[in-house]
Amino acid sequence: MTAVRLGKNQFGKAENRVVRVYRDTDRHEIRDLNVTSQLWGDFTTAHTEGNNEHVVPTDTQKNTIFAKAKEEGITSPEDFLKVLAEHFTAGFDWVSGGRWAAEEYGWSRINDHDHSFYRSAPEVRTAVLTRDGDVDHLISGFYGLTVLKSTGSGFVGYPKDTYTTLPETEDRILATDIATRWRYNTTSMDFEAVYARVKELILSTFTDHYSHALQQTLYKMGEKVIAEVPEIDEIRFSCPNKHHFAQDLSPFGLENPNEVFYAADRPYGLIEASIVRDSAPDVPEAWMGIAGFC
Amino acid sequence: MTAVRLGKNQFGKAENRVVRVYRDTDRHEIRDLNVTSQLWGDFTTAHTEGNNEHVVPTDTQKNTIFAKAKEEGITSPEDFLKVLAEHFTAGFDWVSGGRWAAEEYGWSRINDHDHSFYRSAPEVRTAVLTRDGDVDHLISGFYGLTVLKSTGSGFVGYPKDTYTTLPETEDRILATDIATRWRYNTTSMDFEAVYARVKELILSTFTDHYSHALQQTLYKMGEKVIAEVPEIDEIRFSCPNKHHFAQDLSPFGLENPNEVFYAADRPYGLIEASIVRDSAPDVPEAWMGIAGFC
Amino acid sequence: MTAVRLGKNQFGKAENRVVRVYRDTDRHEIRDLNVTSQLWGDFTTAHTEGNNEHVVPTDTQKNTIFAKAKEEGITSPEDFLKVLAEHFTAGFDWVSGGRWAAEEYGWSRINDHDHSFYRSAPEVRTAVLTRDGDVDHLISGFYGLTVLKSTGSGFVGYPKDTYTTLPETEDRILATDIATRWRYNTTSMDFEAVYARVKELILSTFTDHYSHALQQTLYKMGEKVIAEVPEIDEIRFSCPNKHHFAQDLSPFGLENPNEVFYAADRPYGLIEASIVRDSAPDVPEAWMGIAGFC
Amino acid sequence: MTAVRLGKNQFGKAENRVVRVYRDTDRHEIRDLNVTSQLWGDFTTAHTEGNNEHVVPTDTQKNTIFAKAKEEGITSPEDFLKVLAEHFTAGFDWVSGGRWAAEEYGWSRINDHDHSFYRSAPEVRTAVLTRDGDVDHLISGFYGLTVLKSTGSGFVGYPKDTYTTLPETEDRILATDIATRWRYNTTSMDFEAVYARVKELILSTFTDHYSHALQQTLYKMGEKVIAEVPEIDEIRFSCPNKHHFAQDLSPFGLENPNEVFYAADRPYGLIEASIVRDSAPDVPEAWMGIAGFC
Repeated sequence: MTAVRLGKNQFGKAENRVVRVYRDTDRHEIRDLNVTSQLWGDFTTAHTEGNNEHVVPTDTQKNTIFAKAKEEGITSPEDFLKVLAEHFTAGFDWVSGGRWAAEEYGWSRINDHDHSFYRSAPEVRTAVLTRDGDVDHLISGFYGLTVLKSTGSGFVGYPKDTYTTLPETEDRILATDIATRWRYNTTSMDFEAVYARVKELILSTFTDHYSHALQQTLYKMGEKVIAEVPEIDEIRFSCPNKHHFAQDLSPFGLENPNEVFYAADRPYGLIEASIVRDSAPDVPEAWMGIAGFC
Repeated sequence: MTAVRLGKNQFGKAENRVVRVYRDTDRHEIRDLNVTSQLWGDFTTAHTEGNNEHVVPTDTQKNTIFAKAKEEGITSPEDFLKVLAEHFTAGFDWVSGGRWAAEEYGWSRINDHDHSFYRSAPEVRTAVLTRDGDVDHLISGFYGLTVLKSTGSGFVGYPKDTYTTLPETEDRILATDIATRWRYNTTSMDFEAVYARVKELILSTFTDHYSHALQQTLYKMGEKVIAEVPEIDEIRFSCPNKHHFAQDLSPFGLENPNEVFYAADRPYGLIEASIVRDSAPDVPEAWMGIAGFC
Repeated sequence: MTAVRLGKNQFGKAENRVVRVYRDTDRHEIRDLNVTSQLWGDFTTAHTEGNNEHVVPTDTQKNTIFAKAKEEGITSPEDFLKVLAEHFTAGFDWVSGGRWAAEEYGWSRINDHDHSFYRSAPEVRTAVLTRDGDVDHLISGFYGLTVLKSTGSGFVGYPKDTYTTLPETEDRILATDIATRWRYNTTSMDFEAVYARVKELILSTFTDHYSHALQQTLYKMGEKVIAEVPEIDEIRFSCPNKHHFAQDLSPFGLENPNEVFYAADRPYGLIEASIVRDSAPDVPEAWMGIAGFC
Repeated sequence: MTAVRLGKNQFGKAENRVVRVYRDTDRHEIRDLNVTSQLWGDFTTAHTEGNNEHVVPTDTQKNTIFAKAKEEGITSPEDFLKVLAEHFTAGFDWVSGGRWAAEEYGWSRINDHDHSFYRSAPEVRTAVLTRDGDVDHLISGFYGLTVLKSTGSGFVGYPKDTYTTLPETEDRILATDIATRWRYNTTSMDFEAVYARVKELILSTFTDHYSHALQQTLYKMGEKVIAEVPEIDEIRFSCPNKHHFAQDLSPFGLENPNEVFYAADRPYGLIEASIVRDSAPDVPEAWMGIAGFC
């Protein structure tokens, strides 16, 4: 056979749906997560020889997630991922690091009831912790938060070529599903408070300016977050331009002054950008395996 | 060829994504719908001969939806469907009725801003209007409202047979995605107010009792809605029992007093029931083509 | 409280993913199903009082499915559903019937290997058996079979009104995802052979004529199936008209004689029809709870 | 404001569903693609100032895709992406590169008919071309090819710790959805032939050995592809271990010698690995933005 080598590799258990209930008092709390654990280290002979002596079973990784949810609790996705990273890298000599990821689904109380909840959050919260030897990278974020401005947006001044047919407009709907991830420069903080703050900054920035392009709006959001949250060195966005086309009603003798729109599915614009604190380094390896964030 | 006949048939344009903006003042309003139009009538020769002289093009149905959104506006899904039914049955001699359906996605203002919104509603609102000659049936509802009780639910006293392994429990998580449809006995009302009221009754009933089975909880919800909303004669539910299994942590020397759960995907319990006002007739034909509501 | 009554109701375990391997010889066979069991009968007090003495647990229904897959095997989805119906209606006095449904996913051997397979079938096979006392209805079908004619289809001769903008065409792409269900007049036959035959008749009919409308094509398919398969009394179709719009390239000085198309997602035409053997009765109750087949 | 900088960024039109029909003779051919175009270059002031003078509209990118499908045709996804890269980097001074991606859906003739097709391929073919100045990277692949061995696989010899409960087994079902991407060392070849060859090598390798772990099987597949296809320097896999658990039927007095399985959804094992030609460099930047391939 031609000589080959094993390149990057990882393995683990994906999408462990763990729900943790706190019931120490009558007023329960719940955390609802989807957790993935993947290990890095010396797994070469598993690939080349089918020798599993280093292969910490994905079933064991699953068991550990549920056990740690009991032993350590889940106070934030980020803190829980830190528990997992510590456990696996401390527990097995040949495990040098890994990638632990979580999604969290948000619940609210029904009428302030003690133990009745409804799934309320429009967005899904995300966290990814990678550890490579002594180096940790922690990236948090969310996706699925759909926002829309019914005016206060336009698109003009762009270059025209043979294939350009788009007319300029100074009034249109701007709509997107916000998907964002931000990289922390530390792994210790009040993750709940920071998350709430970032989400609020992004939403309020969305409202506070006339948008010349989605690029500009994303940049403003990022600039604001970096300015206000010292724990964050970089923030990325991957956001569709969800086209709302003013429907042509002129064949029916009707005007349409931006009142009736067709919300298109595909194709869609796709705008992706990273905004970085000037004093901070780029850390491309922290973003490994995260799609859609260039 | 063997003699065959054309049975029930309908055709139209499905999933017209129409967004209506009200911008008469600086404080905009939006309605965001997914509308389907299907016609009933004499379309036999289209099927048997490829003669399209009665086939109101699905493209025309689409155009009509967008034009009517301008001409008549969208004040509720139900009122908009009535406009469509009126238009098509009045406009074409051979169209004797049809089925018009809408989904609506709910938006809220960002920080009370005039023209910036986020998609907030966890549930999707639905409406279906069928007209067959002089007879209208109107069914409203919603789906996708996920609710959970972290205690206050059990399951005991069921029959045991050869294939029973389930242990009885007096404390478990009860969780479901509420999908419900209700049938009105009239087609004129304040649909916005009634919708909000039904949703509130369902949610508050979910919290107000110890649940011996999801069947009991659905019945209580329906009973409450029928009692409180005179415009509704029947309400149906199609609700999964979203199993949350207490994870067995005993192999690791850990107790798990209903604190750590595995949220399973499949299989799931599926509970479906109709609750009907005693004085009202059954109207099975109103439910034609609606899946999952027996 | 206002007097209400319990209307139609059913409950069971949905989406049991059961894979049955036959390994009596080195040449294995597999059947891969998704099975749902729902029971009908006297369950009133479960709803009204939370009394579960008649509630055959959905967990027991699940266990039964897996046990019967071992005891009776799975030789066709239809035959397996008959086993389940027999078991539940014979086993519990208060169970008067039910609804049992299956999807099947098709696999083929890789290079004719004895025990290596790939999931090959583009379509998902379906079966639904309902039993109500002494009356059985059996409906089989499939969905997800996407077909396309790149010519040999047009749409002309339709009525025009104020909202019509569609130009007539005698050459277009006709594409659809075939979803079909057929009702048997017997519950005993070689289900494997009949399924293969119906699929072949539908596909070959799709190719054998110029299509004046999707309605005509569906009718021809149905007519053929009824003529050729005496066990089938009725067949229904619910098929999107998957629009492929010839892209307007004239702004760029290019002609487009039906060579470059934009495949649209939404909205889509939706054509639904039933074709019935002339000598057979209509049986609307057999179609209960099956969406999209009017 | 805190000083920030614009990091990596790209923008374009995603998911352009273009269908190209070749109809020069009565025997038509079709290519069915989903194409995404994204540009790299100097777009800073669009972000920082809302100045769009460099922003080639995503609408123009869309138009170009459809126009090029006519002008240049689509003979393979890879060759079509090369046309797009050439067009955009040659056409605009400030565009220094970009990322062009395609999915292709496979069709087969119905009964060898001239212009009637069905969507047949179980897998979706993929291609990604990135150009950064003078450097091109081309990665092809596919996803969605589900394979299963009903025997000939086991998992033993793994380390045990506090959280291990998994029993060893020398006979189990091994099933996965193959998702793979391979990196070419050249951008000119017969892409159709190479694609078919790689797929065949992967499938035949899946069948040809007893699998001690999915890791081993993926490595063997990769080793074979590198050995047989000189144009490929690296191949990656991201494959779930789709668990099929032998159902415990002992409570019902039944044995289950690997005949009846429960096919689980989540969690699932997730095995990811790269296999690289020993003489070739690593090129991590080629994999930017591709999720799930570490």
